[in-house]
Amino acid sequence: MSIASRTTHEFLREQLEQVLKRRFFFAPAFEIYGGVSGLYDYGPPGCAFQANVIDTWRKHFILEEDMLEVDCTMLTPHEVLKTSGHVDKFADWMCRDLKTGEIFRADHLVEEVLEARLKGDKAARGEKIVEEEESDDKKKRKKKVKEIKNVKLEDGVAHEYETVLNQIDGFSGPELGALIEKYNITNPATGGPLEPPVEFNLMFETAIGPSGQLKGYLRPETAQGQFLNFSKLLECNNERMPFASALIGKSFRNEISPRAGLLRVREFLMAEIEHFVDPEDKRHPRFAEARDVRLRFLPKGVQEAGLNELVEQTVGEAVASGMVDNETLGYFLARIYKFLTKIGVDPSRLRFRQHMSNEMAHYASDCWDAELQTSYGWIECVGCADRSAYDLSVHAARTNEKMVVRQMLPEPVTVEKFEVDIDKKKFGPKFRKDAGAVQKHLAERTQCELETLAQELASSGKVVLDVAGVEGKVEVGSDLLKIARVTRVEHVREFTPNVIEPSFGIGRILYSIFEHQFWSRPEDKDRSVLSLPPLVAPTKVLVVPLSNHADLTPLTHKITAALRKAQVPFKVDDSSASIGKRYARNDELGTPFGITIDFDTIKDGSVTLRERDSTKQVRGSLDAVIAAVKEITYNGAEWSEGTKDLTPFETAAEEA
Amino acid sequence: MSIASRTTHEFLREQLEQVLKRRFFFAPAFEIYGGVSGLYDYGPPGCAFQANVIDTWRKHFILEEDMLEVDCTMLTPHEVLKTSGHVDKFADWMCRDLKTGEIFRADHLVEEVLEARLKGDKAARGEKIVEEEESDDKKKRKKKVKEIKNVKLEDGVAHEYETVLNQIDGFSGPELGALIEKYNITNPATGGPLEPPVEFNLMFETAIGPSGQLKGYLRPETAQGQFLNFSKLLECNNERMPFASALIGKSFRNEISPRAGLLRVREFLMAEIEHFVDPEDKRHPRFAEARDVRLRFLPKGVQEAGLNELVEQTVGEAVASGMVDNETLGYFLARIYKFLTKIGVDPSRLRFRQHMSNEMAHYASDCWDAELQTSYGWIECVGCADRSAYDLSVHAARTNEKMVVRQMLPEPVTVEKFEVDIDKKKFGPKFRKDAGAVQKHLAERTQCELETLAQELASSGKVVLDVAGVEGKVEVGSDLLKIARVTRVEHVREFTPNVIEPSFGIGRILYSIFEHQFWSRPEDKDRSVLSLPPLVAPTKVLVVPLSNHADLTPLTHKITAALRKAQVPFKVDDSSASIGKRYARNDELGTPFGITIDFDTIKDGSVTLRERDSTKQVRGSLDAVIAAVKEITYNGAEWSEGTKDLTPFETAAEEA
Repeated sequence: MSIASRTTHEFLREQLEQVLKRRFFFAPAFEIYGGVSGLYDYGPPGCAFQANVIDTWRKHFILEEDMLEVDCTMLTPHEVLKTSGHVDKFADWMCRDLKTGEIFRADHLVEEVLEARLKGDKAARGEKIVEEEESDDKKKRKKKVKEIKNVKLEDGVAHEYETVLNQIDGFSGPELGALIEKYNITNPATGGPLEPPVEFNLMFETAIGPSGQLKGYLRPETAQGQFLNFSKLLECNNERMPFASALIGKSFRNEISPRAGLLRVREFLMAEIEHFVDPEDKRHPRFAEARDVRLRFLPKGVQEAGLNELVEQTVGEAVASGMVDNETLGYFLARIYKFLTKIGVDPSRLRFRQHMSNEMAHYASDCWDAELQTSYGWIECVGCADRSAYDLSVHAARTNEKMVVRQMLPEPVTVEKFEVDIDKKKFGPKFRKDAGAVQKHLAERTQCELETLAQELASSGKVVLDVAGVEGKVEVGSDLLKIARVTRVEHVREFTPNVIEPSFGIGRILYSIFEHQFWSRPEDKDRSVLSLPPLVAPTKVLVVPLSNHADLTPLTHKITAALRKAQVPFKVDDSSASIGKRYARNDELGTPFGITIDFDTIKDGSVTLRERDSTKQVRGSLDAVIAAVKEITYNGAEWSEGTKDLTPFETAAEEA
Repeated sequence: MSIASRTTHEFLREQLEQVLKRRFFFAPAFEIYGGVSGLYDYGPPGCAFQANVIDTWRKHFILEEDMLEVDCTMLTPHEVLKTSGHVDKFADWMCRDLKTGEIFRADHLVEEVLEARLKGDKAARGEKIVEEEESDDKKKRKKKVKEIKNVKLEDGVAHEYETVLNQIDGFSGPELGALIEKYNITNPATGGPLEPPVEFNLMFETAIGPSGQLKGYLRPETAQGQFLNFSKLLECNNERMPFASALIGKSFRNEISPRAGLLRVREFLMAEIEHFVDPEDKRHPRFAEARDVRLRFLPKGVQEAGLNELVEQTVGEAVASGMVDNETLGYFLARIYKFLTKIGVDPSRLRFRQHMSNEMAHYASDCWDAELQTSYGWIECVGCADRSAYDLSVHAARTNEKMVVRQMLPEPVTVEKFEVDIDKKKFGPKFRKDAGAVQKHLAERTQCELETLAQELASSGKVVLDVAGVEGKVEVGSDLLKIARVTRVEHVREFTPNVIEPSFGIGRILYSIFEHQFWSRPEDKDRSVLSLPPLVAPTKVLVVPLSNHADLTPLTHKITAALRKAQVPFKVDDSSASIGKRYARNDELGTPFGITIDFDTIKDGSVTLRERDSTKQVRGSLDAVIAAVKEITYNGAEWSEGTKDLTPFETAAEEA
């Protein structure tokens, strides 16, 4: 169909939600028990769609680039997540209303209230408001919002609000607290005062083992398991760099206020890649394939100015100008773009937003989110961060396990460096139980520190050290210790790799595709269609016997056997509903093809193949029709190309 | 290879464990942090093997039988698992040593100590002991077991122990306590006394949401999510019965004492089917396909007699004799058998053990476990239970949601039954706030209860009721209530389906296959081979350039491009190791095929194809070789058949 016919009717979120619910793409988990916010179950079509997206992801990333797929546990002991920083930092800011007991996520609260005030201002000025589609969820909350009145804002205030909203992802808790105070934001339902924002850790906690002593969490991301196995993975890869691991699995975040359906949930499927790369060489061998891919960027500079204009450039240009930090990052942005558009994302509703300096994790050197535009706004669906050497370094330091790459140098190099020489025989008796700690302390000094210590030793005959785990100062005299500048020939270079991490939130991607591919037939706005690409559609073919005449039954069996043998997922609809009704049902399910069995099939074995979006039909032998379905679904052929050997077929009013 | 050559060397568990570790099939999770018992990560080959087994499972069960796959959350609120019985019953029995703080799982403790005593008895009598292979894990524990001495047991005691061991899965906590007392079982390490067994709930607990008020658990099985969605699934299936749902996902059990590697872990992948069936008709439409499948059964009668002889029968015979309760259960046992043998289970080490009456859940009407024999004994890998209507009934009762099937009767039937007729106008004023509860109580009476009440009403002019939620007795007079036998014509039959549940523990199956398919070449016991079937092997093809001569590099690229296009998973090994060494490495990885590139490839494009188990080689064009690989891997062709168009090829000492 043409884009024009797909946009005849305005998109209505409520209509989409009804279809998704009616066809059981997904539904609130434990619904008969009243449900639990932020938990959803996928029904058969949603589950099949998800499985096909995952299968495509696996082929696009893992197989195409020989990544090492792993499967790590979700249960994670406290110590690991303490080291990674999650115990201390993985939190959102929440405000309590002490009177009602309600809890609000601080940034969402500010966002919601300022948006409402802006809307009220426009209304008071008589401007037309483009009414945002509202989900049941939002309606419910809105009922409670007493504050929305059509009040004009003072001069400049509206602009100030817009600037704040453009930067909303970048504020710290205290900054949010200041905004709440400055703009006099209260409990929207009651107008009551709120406590200042406090941190709430988003990890689900549990106890491992019968003693209850070992504290653990459900992982908040899949990355840590991959980092911890780094050395084993490097060995699997025959010690060669660069390489990537990948993991597809569930993660968990105890959201303060889950909302917006699949977009903010407490349990979600992720697909994460950890690409390990030489920090001194972040070129990518296949960058040529990415260079000319044109993307729409929202760089940090634009956002920091409180604006949101997009910059359209090729990946090559973006890397050359330094806007995107390095080739590998740029390569992955292009691969992400190709993946998303392959599975049904509308490229005109996809942008790459760079994290602002104050929003980025302190260890990251650059970070871009692939954001998809939905009726909820622009949604972060894929993150692509350069995590530098942070994770491997902190785990290595905590566990004393080396997590490094050792590479033979092409030619030996001569280096001058300071080295520590200890008289071990004397060291033990002198420092006793602290001997190990003192040695370790000396071994871990940087070249710069050693230079200072060497001077100290030369000038005063001793060094005075603060050694971790040892009380008081430690003095080491020149009888026990030498620090000298020596010349060495080195054959091996040792380094901690940096990590580029493309991280996909699968549920958010699936929901965005629903919005991007949902439309209604021009002739009837209630006949909606979900134009999922054949590659990822839950079912590829609906088999429709024209009637339930007994003569057609053996043909149905023959056709389903052939489809099963060809491994093409199908469903049969031999209900008594009209052909048109049966196809309408499957248009909602996103089934791209229909095979109709009629009385001519008995005569000559031919069947009709119908395409969902155009409702075009062609006719041919069963084998030819199945071949066309496979060619279009799995080899990406266009309809016209895939069906060129089949005969166009017209019916009077098939869709009635 | 012949079976004989595969059994030249005795199976050594330690050797297998070393291979699995060296090739990173799996490893203890968080190993650099010292690990956490019962948590394992799968490395690349383990993860790929698992993915292939899951893919095969999906095709074998879901696609083949049009099952409805769903994906439900792991986080589960308290109330759901309270209703299902898990909060109260999902527990193991543990004994504490108050002095040392150690915790033992009661049944494991009894098993271990009695086995040790039997071994000591045999040794004391000079009998040869077939030494069981010991894992590191077991060795560690054994070091602590002070009790193992070679002491002769009194007459009859050995036999008594054996009887207990054959029934070990059937004892309750108090029964285990009695055994511990009777046989004077103490802490094996110290000889110290143990507290009597107490229950320990195996679910991991957590709190959902920021208030900390909503208690939840990680699901201990995937079944409950499927049950709760029953009505939606029935609708997806156009209200037709029977049908099945399926779920592949992780479950969690906080094991008291995880042991035996992948066999008893705290987080594990399951694949579960819930087949919903008419309780009055458990025939299966495809039973004919299962009837002649011959299985080895261990029925409950044999076990209850303290014995363990197997009964070999066809599924048809087992169902006809009533040993297996019904056709649907029998059908699934045959399907399970076919699946397991397809993915590499040795059929001679597979048996179906029936649960004993005291071991089966109280609601189950029959239950069979597919058990696989390993060096740890017979291990339950698949359960296949008839759960009756238990789950749907308890959830329906708790939530007041109907979970039933309504079927048009082929012909209307006339039934006589008691019906309750209430004078609603008078009911409200009389019973006020209790009116609803009294009405509900009356509406829920069975036909038998109504008959009794009708008699009471007729004889005394009133009925006296105990109504839940209402204090004291409730009297209802005949002015308010009529109970009469009436004749009705019914067009619809309403029933709660029964559930047949095949439930697969994927990790246990994977480990058992490792043991079943691991062997060493007759000429060298250190050259071990993992004969995973090509269908599920992690990688299908190893590409081996004969040398790293520059002329061969473009050919390697050409071949890998062709394999990638054909979607055949492969690895390249262009290291400088000898061909033999490179193949040996991949024999351990279970890679079934090798493609060698040599200097003849430059001349005529031909390559050599090598088969892992026989080390046979054939030669042909690249296209022909890839076609052979696909035919054997995905279409199940034998080597001789798949390679019949290729030329046998001999090398002098390829494997050197």
